[in-house]
Amino acid sequence: MQSFQNSITKLFNTEIPIIQGGMIWASGWRLASAVSNAGALGLIGSGSMYPEVLKEHIQKCKSATSKPFGVNIPLLYPNIDEHIQTIIEEKISIVFTSAGNPATYTSLLKKNGIKVVHVVSSSKFAIKAQDAGCDAVVAEGFEAGGHNGREETTSMVLIPAICEAVNIPVIAAGGIARGNQMLAAMILGASAVQIGSRFVASDEASSHINFKNAITNVEEGGTSLSLKKLTPVRLLKNKFYHEIHEAEINGASKEELIELLGRGRAKKGMFEGDIDTGELEIGQSSCLIKKVQPASEIVHEIWNDYLHEIEKLKR
Amino acid sequence: MQSFQNSITKLFNTEIPIIQGGMIWASGWRLASAVSNAGALGLIGSGSMYPEVLKEHIQKCKSATSKPFGVNIPLLYPNIDEHIQTIIEEKISIVFTSAGNPATYTSLLKKNGIKVVHVVSSSKFAIKAQDAGCDAVVAEGFEAGGHNGREETTSMVLIPAICEAVNIPVIAAGGIARGNQMLAAMILGASAVQIGSRFVASDEASSHINFKNAITNVEEGGTSLSLKKLTPVRLLKNKFYHEIHEAEINGASKEELIELLGRGRAKKGMFEGDIDTGELEIGQSSCLIKKVQPASEIVHEIWNDYLHEIEKLKR
Repeated sequence: MQSFQNSITKLFNTEIPIIQGGMIWASGWRLASAVSNAGALGLIGSGSMYPEVLKEHIQKCKSATSKPFGVNIPLLYPNIDEHIQTIIEEKISIVFTSAGNPATYTSLLKKNGIKVVHVVSSSKFAIKAQDAGCDAVVAEGFEAGGHNGREETTSMVLIPAICEAVNIPVIAAGGIARGNQMLAAMILGASAVQIGSRFVASDEASSHINFKNAITNVEEGGTSLSLKKLTPVRLLKNKFYHEIHEAEINGASKEELIELLGRGRAKKGMFEGDIDTGELEIGQSSCLIKKVQPASEIVHEIWNDYLHEIEKLKR
Repeated sequence: MQSFQNSITKLFNTEIPIIQGGMIWASGWRLASAVSNAGALGLIGSGSMYPEVLKEHIQKCKSATSKPFGVNIPLLYPNIDEHIQTIIEEKISIVFTSAGNPATYTSLLKKNGIKVVHVVSSSKFAIKAQDAGCDAVVAEGFEAGGHNGREETTSMVLIPAICEAVNIPVIAAGGIARGNQMLAAMILGASAVQIGSRFVASDEASSHINFKNAITNVEEGGTSLSLKKLTPVRLLKNKFYHEIHEAEINGASKEELIELLGRGRAKKGMFEGDIDTGELEIGQSSCLIKKVQPASEIVHEIWNDYLHEIEKLKR
């Protein structure tokens, strides 16, 4: 692999500026270690893990790779204190936080020598993350899968806007599944990309095979930012989505939507493989994903295509 | 200006692959001729013009520039046949069509030696435009101002998707106001960019100065895709928008929204300068637009920044 260095590879001590997003029911130790072994940064997604499960995944990940990896924590996670404790005890060196106030835990993590990155959907939140002492931010555009911001700013606009608003490095997320998209994001000012959907469709993701196969069949326009009265989340348009959408059009209240959503809906869809009535969180870029592959192959394809696009411009 | 050629500059016989979007109440002969004189392609936006007004603008544009310019026609325009007749009589050589079925007029226009480009928001519509005989398509992402598609696919995903779906050249629109965004779009596969919002904030746009100044003050997240029960349109979040939004949240019917919208709302806002109660159509990229400038300066800045970004990658 061609030698490369920038602010993000130096921050994380990785070979290339690609980060696999921490995703519930998808990114356990198998995926994170496979991505890190390929020279990128793998993240364990702790949002769907009980505290003891997270501990187990961290330990297995350490055995599976000698390279840096990190943990993603949604700050609204109910057992957040236990997760933070586990991370410190296990001497995790990189933490990505999302969905909450970065001021709450960043200084504690930093005191323990941990690099902290916060995921944001606007320049305002990016500045807050910078002020909280974060080492970098992830600028997550409207096209990203899963939970998302209310302002709906897309990667094309959000990346340059956030790069102008903060001095810390910016990692672009949302809509990126290929090397040319990675280069587009870097030209917009990003120092790295965080990729989610394409890694869900990897052999090593813990997502159910039915969900992985469904991703490779998503058509353009096959996802939608839904549940805006609760927390906006980008979903694959399956039977469950259409029920939610119908209710929303008919003016369903917050309470009615919560009841319709029920409990365990995301696990049912993404982990147990019920692709009709489960909740399937995925990004717009899924329409560009054509097959389930080993994670290392995904890393190498994106990176080689990225380098190839640069070579084309040099001609 | 550095010499450049690709499929789009050859198609339109322009010096550079930048197109100024045809926009109601903004792009008359002054703006279109200024853009064309700067080496890009100017478009007269006929959607807000009576037939005799379009004729006048075409004739004035011809006097103001010897370079190629075009006319944009929304195909749902009520006096569409008169507009088509004017275009043929005045020997216009380039027509951009939008908001309607490209099969209806493309062959008539082509028979009269006119290059035809259709604006689309999805690969499905891009293929229809190609099948109808269009010479190129504009791929318009979710972030674009004004009327927009229902699938909400953003430029980051839409550009590569449409480039894969059709063989004719693709012009990227939506979220592009700067040279680095233009290069990002070109790397995603576009052969040119169509820029709207930034040209509304030009000296030569016929938009009211109040609207131009409002654009330079739009904050990130300051626009929203609205009126989805009618035709989705991206609006600046002013007093009028908030009224519409409130009604939408409370489940207003299509009929109630039509009544709330009333008649002449866009003219009132964009042309007459009532920025509180008028309808202001503008894209997400407005948060990156800091000043009102001459159109030629906008063209040169974007093009020079684009070339500069390429030079940076060659280092």
